[in-house]
Amino acid sequence: MAKVPSAAISRLVTYLRILEDLEARGVNRTSSEQLSEEAQVTAFQVRKDLSYFGSYGTRGVGYTVPVLRRELQQILGLNRRWGLCIVGMGRLGQALADYPGFDEHFDLRGFFDIDPAKHGLSFRGVAVEALEHLPRAVAERRIEVGLIAVPADSAQSVADRMIDSGLRGILNFAPVVLEVPKEVAVENVDFLAGLSRLSFFILNPRLREEMIG
Amino acid sequence: MAKVPSAAISRLVTYLRILEDLEARGVNRTSSEQLSEEAQVTAFQVRKDLSYFGSYGTRGVGYTVPVLRRELQQILGLNRRWGLCIVGMGRLGQALADYPGFDEHFDLRGFFDIDPAKHGLSFRGVAVEALEHLPRAVAERRIEVGLIAVPADSAQSVADRMIDSGLRGILNFAPVVLEVPKEVAVENVDFLAGLSRLSFFILNPRLREEMIG
Repeated sequence: MAKVPSAAISRLVTYLRILEDLEARGVNRTSSEQLSEEAQVTAFQVRKDLSYFGSYGTRGVGYTVPVLRRELQQILGLNRRWGLCIVGMGRLGQALADYPGFDEHFDLRGFFDIDPAKHGLSFRGVAVEALEHLPRAVAERRIEVGLIAVPADSAQSVADRMIDSGLRGILNFAPVVLEVPKEVAVENVDFLAGLSRLSFFILNPRLREEMIG
Repeated sequence: MAKVPSAAISRLVTYLRILEDLEARGVNRTSSEQLSEEAQVTAFQVRKDLSYFGSYGTRGVGYTVPVLRRELQQILGLNRRWGLCIVGMGRLGQALADYPGFDEHFDLRGFFDIDPAKHGLSFRGVAVEALEHLPRAVAERRIEVGLIAVPADSAQSVADRMIDSGLRGILNFAPVVLEVPKEVAVENVDFLAGLSRLSFFILNPRLREEMIG
């Protein structure tokens, strides 16, 4: 397979959402032009992103919405259910635990905090536990991905414990670059980077409008 | 100026952080190779990203860290201070208001909620106010960017009020695509997309290691 730019994966997520939306509206056929318009990229980009993973659609006919939706789900690994946990049940962790937008592919199965005062709380019918319970919970409840919602200065030690417990992916909300073995995937939710991008785009509105990708 | 890929702006933010870190450690010179290694992109990518905005560095000599840092700050508009407000002071809004990672370029100047029960709270010495106060606060306190931390079903109406009040940029935490006039910049903090990317990368570890960009 050709080297895939990391940004292509983000775009596949966007295409999938557009397809889900089209499907929910009963639309059966689409085109790289329609996808590109809604995703605000070029039609060439859409075709190129899909081409990394196979041959989709028919020239001059386009794509069948439910078929391409299923294929994208499979490429992204969203044809299965992922078990998640949150470590750090302060306000951010609690906001995440109550977040209504998790879809059927992401299942919150554990909440952990070092503060015993948090252990009385429960979310989605699951009680907040001591961090010491993490390894057992990971094994027993098939938890695969951990969300880090602790302060920056404890994020690395939480990441280490997650990895020791067998987690394979980390979604990090702490403003720190985590060091992890190469077999562990990390995504950072970095809203300061979003603010820096806004700063640029506010000052360069014309560039933003012309922007590709 | 050549068309700039949107992802290049994200990478400039990454380069800036690396330079700030080098400068804090007293390092005075760097190279596209060093930047590329720390940013996990190719050296060609670093030089190309910088080339959109001018001519930086000297062949065979590299970059002077504080000079390139200042130039990147200027490109990104981070040589000034941006006034921010948060609308929606539930757990997420409160977590954001107390977030310690805002640097000197971002200044929280207003907190708003429709719920009167929230109006007694205060963060960073600023009281939470009724949403009706937004237009006046924007004008009087030079607020330019709004953070949306309300539920999905009220995010668009909050965005509309922000735009009517004169905000030029929106950082949206709600899981919804906002419709805004083209002169307003929007960035979405989308952690479900982060989870979808994790799903892909956990299932494709080899692709992740080889990944470019």
